[in-house]
Amino acid sequence: MEQLAHNLGKNLAKVAEILVSGGLGGTMEAVFQGFKAVGGLTIGITPGYDKKEANEHADIVIPTGLGLARNVLVVKSAEVVVALPGEAGTLSEIAYCLQFGIPVISLKSWDIPGVIKAETVEEAVNKVRELLKA
Amino acid sequence: MEQLAHNLGKNLAKVAEILVSGGLGGTMEAVFQGFKAVGGLTIGITPGYDKKEANEHADIVIPTGLGLARNVLVVKSAEVVVALPGEAGTLSEIAYCLQFGIPVISLKSWDIPGVIKAETVEEAVNKVRELLKA
Amino acid sequence: MEQLAHNLGKNLAKVAEILVSGGLGGTMEAVFQGFKAVGGLTIGITPGYDKKEANEHADIVIPTGLGLARNVLVVKSAEVVVALPGEAGTLSEIAYCLQFGIPVISLKSWDIPGVIKAETVEEAVNKVRELLKA
Amino acid sequence: MEQLAHNLGKNLAKVAEILVSGGLGGTMEAVFQGFKAVGGLTIGITPGYDKKEANEHADIVIPTGLGLARNVLVVKSAEVVVALPGEAGTLSEIAYCLQFGIPVISLKSWDIPGVIKAETVEEAVNKVRELLKA
Repeated sequence: MEQLAHNLGKNLAKVAEILVSGGLGGTMEAVFQGFKAVGGLTIGITPGYDKKEANEHADIVIPTGLGLARNVLVVKSAEVVVALPGEAGTLSEIAYCLQFGIPVISLKSWDIPGVIKAETVEEAVNKVRELLKA
Repeated sequence: MEQLAHNLGKNLAKVAEILVSGGLGGTMEAVFQGFKAVGGLTIGITPGYDKKEANEHADIVIPTGLGLARNVLVVKSAEVVVALPGEAGTLSEIAYCLQFGIPVISLKSWDIPGVIKAETVEEAVNKVRELLKA
Repeated sequence: MEQLAHNLGKNLAKVAEILVSGGLGGTMEAVFQGFKAVGGLTIGITPGYDKKEANEHADIVIPTGLGLARNVLVVKSAEVVVALPGEAGTLSEIAYCLQFGIPVISLKSWDIPGVIKAETVEEAVNKVRELLKA
Repeated sequence: MEQLAHNLGKNLAKVAEILVSGGLGGTMEAVFQGFKAVGGLTIGITPGYDKKEANEHADIVIPTGLGLARNVLVVKSAEVVVALPGEAGTLSEIAYCLQFGIPVISLKSWDIPGVIKAETVEEAVNKVRELLKA
């Protein structure tokens, strides 16, 4: 999964200049690493107050201290969201996208009515490109 | 659906003393009305700063001004959550229950892995009773 | 100072039915203890996610997980605020009162333009009574 | 006051690469304008959900929807804070600095025990430089 995230990050850098995530480890770190490898700017909006909580590929850290409520901010900062395979945290972010009317692409992630499904990184990135143009 | 909510509220009052919700209209109002009809205490945790935003069956109003981030507080205040049919807001609350490990009963609501399904108010209330005892 | 807080709580119960605070120890606990001794209802809006963080005199606990941002909720839930001697946390709550236009009585606490000063518990409680009537 | 803010922004750009503020108009806009004039990166952490609420000199907008609770995030994102003349919102941010232990320079702003006072932009910027080195 981190391979998928890294690959996504690398390819997203072709269509976007800034990538926002929850800023922690695992998928969030891998996607930042890929995005930065091609020169993008990364912003991690973290749940705690300690900036060191963020992964080392976050250029800018917003340490919210809001716990899980910070998921709203991660989503609302974006024009388009790509959801990677994940658990309930990812599901809450998809739900917030649907509430806000922010387009959310599910790359092998939750299949919820209203998400835009993508099976490959290429397909996801193409959809991001189109949505950012619109 | 509001009939279902009202009926749920009335029956929850047999097993719980306090009912928390997002405090607005529709389902949130109907369930409060039912709960108060049998003497329970209702707490509405609302998204805006204006207490008048709450429905008139909220005994106590916590006007958070946090927007959708207040969903976290609605969920985290509870020992057990019952989800009624709803859209993305309900889905975000189910997701938070799963993240926090708070038991969530889906009464004809979202069918997400990890929720406890119930088909009738009676079944939902019985499950709440058992969970509160545990 | 906790004697002052306890005494304040006891006397506030003559003019108010519900007392909200940050729900932790020290002053917040003493004022709840006094208020409950005369039968009032206490609500603790706590910074973390663990309900056990609240003092044992909180009847209702709203565990926000919002850290210091929960200070906004403590203030905004109230019709009138009484500030006891305290440090920067108290100062942030006074500042929020001034922003929201909520009357704030400073009982030997910060002397900021806009607060209503009181030298004794009796004076503070009389002012709360008048403000609640208005 | 906006002249002071603009001047502060321009000079802060000599010692810092990123400037965070509440992102709205008035002082927040003037300080961004000055900072950007010399090439710095500006981040506006706004209270509402609408990115258009931010002033046009914000390079990055984090639209929190948290209302006044977003003041915590503005402060906590920083290594050093400079408070300009302002009202209760500024006071709440100074209070949060003191709670977090973040150094806060009061440039003709609130005189609260614990703040570092500065009478001129030059003095404020020199203090920021020293604090960022430490």
